[in-house]
Amino acid sequence: MDELLRAPADVRLHDIDTRSTPGFDGDKADGERALADGVDELSSLQERLHAASTAGETRRVLLVIQAMDTAGKGGIVRHVIGSVDPQGVQLAAFKRPTEEELSHHFLWRVEKQLPAVGKIGVFDRSHYEDVLIGRVRELAPADEIEQRYDDIAAFERRVADSGTSIVKVMLHISKDEQKERLAERLDRPDKHWKYNPGDIDERMLWAEYERAYELAIERTDADHAPWFIVPADRKWYARLAVQSLLLSALRDLDPQWPSADFDVELEKQRLADS
Amino acid sequence: MDELLRAPADVRLHDIDTRSTPGFDGDKADGERALADGVDELSSLQERLHAASTAGETRRVLLVIQAMDTAGKGGIVRHVIGSVDPQGVQLAAFKRPTEEELSHHFLWRVEKQLPAVGKIGVFDRSHYEDVLIGRVRELAPADEIEQRYDDIAAFERRVADSGTSIVKVMLHISKDEQKERLAERLDRPDKHWKYNPGDIDERMLWAEYERAYELAIERTDADHAPWFIVPADRKWYARLAVQSLLLSALRDLDPQWPSADFDVELEKQRLADS
Repeated sequence: MDELLRAPADVRLHDIDTRSTPGFDGDKADGERALADGVDELSSLQERLHAASTAGETRRVLLVIQAMDTAGKGGIVRHVIGSVDPQGVQLAAFKRPTEEELSHHFLWRVEKQLPAVGKIGVFDRSHYEDVLIGRVRELAPADEIEQRYDDIAAFERRVADSGTSIVKVMLHISKDEQKERLAERLDRPDKHWKYNPGDIDERMLWAEYERAYELAIERTDADHAPWFIVPADRKWYARLAVQSLLLSALRDLDPQWPSADFDVELEKQRLADS
Repeated sequence: MDELLRAPADVRLHDIDTRSTPGFDGDKADGERALADGVDELSSLQERLHAASTAGETRRVLLVIQAMDTAGKGGIVRHVIGSVDPQGVQLAAFKRPTEEELSHHFLWRVEKQLPAVGKIGVFDRSHYEDVLIGRVRELAPADEIEQRYDDIAAFERRVADSGTSIVKVMLHISKDEQKERLAERLDRPDKHWKYNPGDIDERMLWAEYERAYELAIERTDADHAPWFIVPADRKWYARLAVQSLLLSALRDLDPQWPSADFDVELEKQRLADS
């Protein structure tokens, strides 16, 4: 599945079917079963990654999730990340920057949220906002936006080199699907809190955002920090796909239970005597 | 169940049966079923708490978990807290203080980890370590330890007054049960990483720790920051009990879906036009 999701060179989002399910033949029920089937392995790999870190292993995973509003970032966090021991996860949601954050380089707040050794870090939005809304809304001069792609590339190179497996996901929904999801939020009083009139303002700029995503992906895709475009009109598929990407990253790390750094027999004796 | 677990005045841990299941008549299978039955309500209350916070509600929950080694803190986090959307949880594990932390008042690092509005904060160990290992190991002069109880009481008073429902749990295991659990860690190579020879050193001071817990509970129990003593030799019971305590705290808050702060009909029109 993973290779089918890897962003192509010269990506054109419009050409990627948001209702497709690359690499998976089943329907929703099959997809939900497959997701459930992956939970134990994901959980076990996470525990081994953590265990290995207590013995000096310095590797970790960073999942970056970017998407248009309503594309299902929250559902991924809840249903995929939520199946992992919370002690093994470091979740950071990047919202509109604070005054303090704005007074620093845009990567300042990102650096602080990088996952510790042995952790699965998850970015719900990320430094990419600075070249997405940053570009579309012209929040910085054009040459500064240009510079940011290079800054991001250098930053991710260093993060990868220091032992982090980076997985970058764009959840890709259609404009029509977003309309339906926003309509549902407006129809249900228990969903009103998720709705923000500003969502429509951004929606009006759909094509500009698509272009900004394409540029960001083109400028920052790399084998050590790959972009995956996950069709997300079908929520069950998007969840399964992100779980699959995480599983692959962890399998590649292949973390091992560390061996004891103490004398097991001696400790058994000490315990018996205590 | 909750009232049966509330720490009595003049608590004597030795008199509380660590294998008992106060307020629950069933066996392990029943308990696991009851735990599963509580997941939806806990999840739903958490979501409403979060939703309400987006509309100005300032309340939140803080669960403090303290225990001797192997008592099952990790299992509580994984099986009780792990059933809640990770976006609604703020988990802090307090380990041996760093040099920087030691250069501040002992509550400095704790303040920074207090849950934000709308969150369920979870402390895996806490400021109580400073009057537990702090007392037993004489890490500070006796009069400073004395002062810390008052500092904690004043701190928790202020935290509660600012809208935080505090729930403090001591997972209570027997010394024999700990022996079995440590033995299991020594027997299983995939558990060796969880074992630390220092655990035996602390175990040798069991009675001193019991006394330190009793004092801490006695000095800091309050209706706005109550202590609950949860018998924990049966892991399934401890998990069910902590879920029950969390559910009660959230039910008391009774968070409500906020009403829309925008014109719903106008937004439906804007969406239709977009």
